[in-house]
Order: sequence, then C-alpha cells, then structure tokens
Amino acid sequence: MKTEYRIKPIGVIHSPFNDRKEVPIQPRFSRDKGEVELFDEYSEGLKDIEGFSHIILVYFFHKSQDYSLLVRPYLDNKEKGVFATRFPERPNHIGISVVKLLEKKENTLIVGGIDVIDGTPLLDIKPYVPPFDNTKTVKIGWLEGKL
Amino acid sequence: MKTEYRIKPIGVIHSPFNDRKEVPIQPRFSRDKGEVELFDEYSEGLKDIEGFSHIILVYFFHKSQDYSLLVRPYLDNKEKGVFATRFPERPNHIGISVVKLLEKKENTLIVGGIDVIDGTPLLDIKPYVPPFDNTKTVKIGWLEGKL
Repeated sequence: MKTEYRIKPIGVIHSPFNDRKEVPIQPRFSRDKGEVELFDEYSEGLKDIEGFSHIILVYFFHKSQDYSLLVRPYLDNKEKGVFATRFPERPNHIGISVVKLLEKKENTLIVGGIDVIDGTPLLDIKPYVPPFDNTKTVKIGWLEGKL
Repeated sequence: MKTEYRIKPIGVIHSPFNDRKEVPIQPRFSRDKGEVELFDEYSEGLKDIEGFSHIILVYFFHKSQDYSLLVRPYLDNKEKGVFATRFPERPNHIGISVVKLLEKKENTLIVGGIDVIDGTPLLDIKPYVPPFDNTKTVKIGWLEGKL
C-alpha cells in the first residue's frame, strides 16, 4: 500500500455560504441551491446524470488544515471519536453530501440542499442509488433524539 | 484552489475478495463479512462508533490506474457518463460503501455487506445518519428496472 495518494479537483461547488458558520449542518437542513461546476475537460462524464433525482457529491474540506481524533461536534458538547461524527477536521479532509439534482446546464448541475462553503473543490459525483445507499433500520448512537 | 491534494490511508479493508471479478456489485448484494482495520495511531477516533448500526466507508480504488469519462457499467452494455455510474475508473479513484457495523474489536470493525477487494486502503469512516444520507423519493435513471 502506498503511504499517500494524490487527488485533484474536477470542478468547484458554488454555494451561498462564505464560511463555515453560515453552512447548515447537513443538506437536509438547507433549502439553498448550489451550482456544481465541472471543469470542461470532465463534462462528457455527466452524460446520463439527468436521470437521477439525487446525487452524492464528494469534495475536499479545503478550509480544514489539521485533524483531531476526538472532536466536539455541533450537536453535542461532549467529545466524540471523529469517525462517529461528520466533522470536517478528519485525517483525510473528504466530505460527502447527498443533494437533489434539479437541473443540468451544460457542465453545471443545479442542486438543492447544498451544505458546503462556496468554492469547495469537487472530487467526484456519484448517482444516489437506494439499494446501495439507503438503509432503513438504523441506530444512530449519540445523535439519537438530536435531529 | 490547489491543483492537487494528498490523502493517506488510515487503515486497510480485509475482505474475502481477491480481485474485482469476485466482488459483488454493491454491498446490498453481498452477504460477506469484512474487517476494517484502522492503523493504531487513529484508533482513538473510533470512540462512540458502536452506537451506529451502519457506517459509510470511504476508500481508494487502488487497483484502478486510469479513468474514462464514458464507461460500460456492469449492469448495462451501453456507454454511460462515468458520473452516472459507480464504476471505479473515475477521475479520482475514491469509492464509498454503506455497510452494517456488526462489532468493534479494538481498532478493527467487523462489517457486513462488504464489496471491496481485500487490501483496499481505507480513507475515512463516517456514521450513516438517515436524515443526511437517506432519501425516499428518487429517480435512478438508466438503472431503473435493473436492480
């Protein structure tokens, strides 16, 4: 196994939020629209995306510099293990969000329920597919009763 | 925006599958157990994870060398835009899978429904939280009727 891998932005996410304090905790709580702009060289890869009502955005938490293994998340004031949270200061600064695909305009996707800072580097787009991504019976640990 | 970012494995995923042909298409189709081994230095970050019945694994498709913008996915023989598929040969070789958390043994998580090759580098673990990750009304484009 290599000790590191390189990843590159394939686009940029435009949102109404200029810093983290403005960003809703997760897309569920956001009614705001965003624009996911793919760099021209990748736009052919968007073929067939219009068929999907929801997509998964994979992006880089570019404002996060470091990480902690124990963090105080937004919804609790007791320390949690970082992997039991969606906190951005994680060992790899990778974030994922499920958003609604509203419209495709050339190499830009208009999405609903955006929850990232304006200018966030886009790493990947995946179709949201319920048999893969949806699970009904779940326990949500420390988040129980907080959402 | 930087032109590239560096990410590092935080652990390794052990599975019964030695190459891609053996791997089920997605966890839903897999009854196999896997072991998600976190490197010792990160194990403190697993605190509180036991409360969650499902977790999202973020990993690197380490067997993928290159990418295509148009791909022939497993479930269809017509070319699709890569971002409308979960195909591994994408511009950034990042994969995500929702799996069931069965047990935690020190720095190892036993998970159900694993769908990655043995030895896959682990990048992140996130709790699966229905209000963020679950969406009921969805269209699934070219996958309709295939699952």
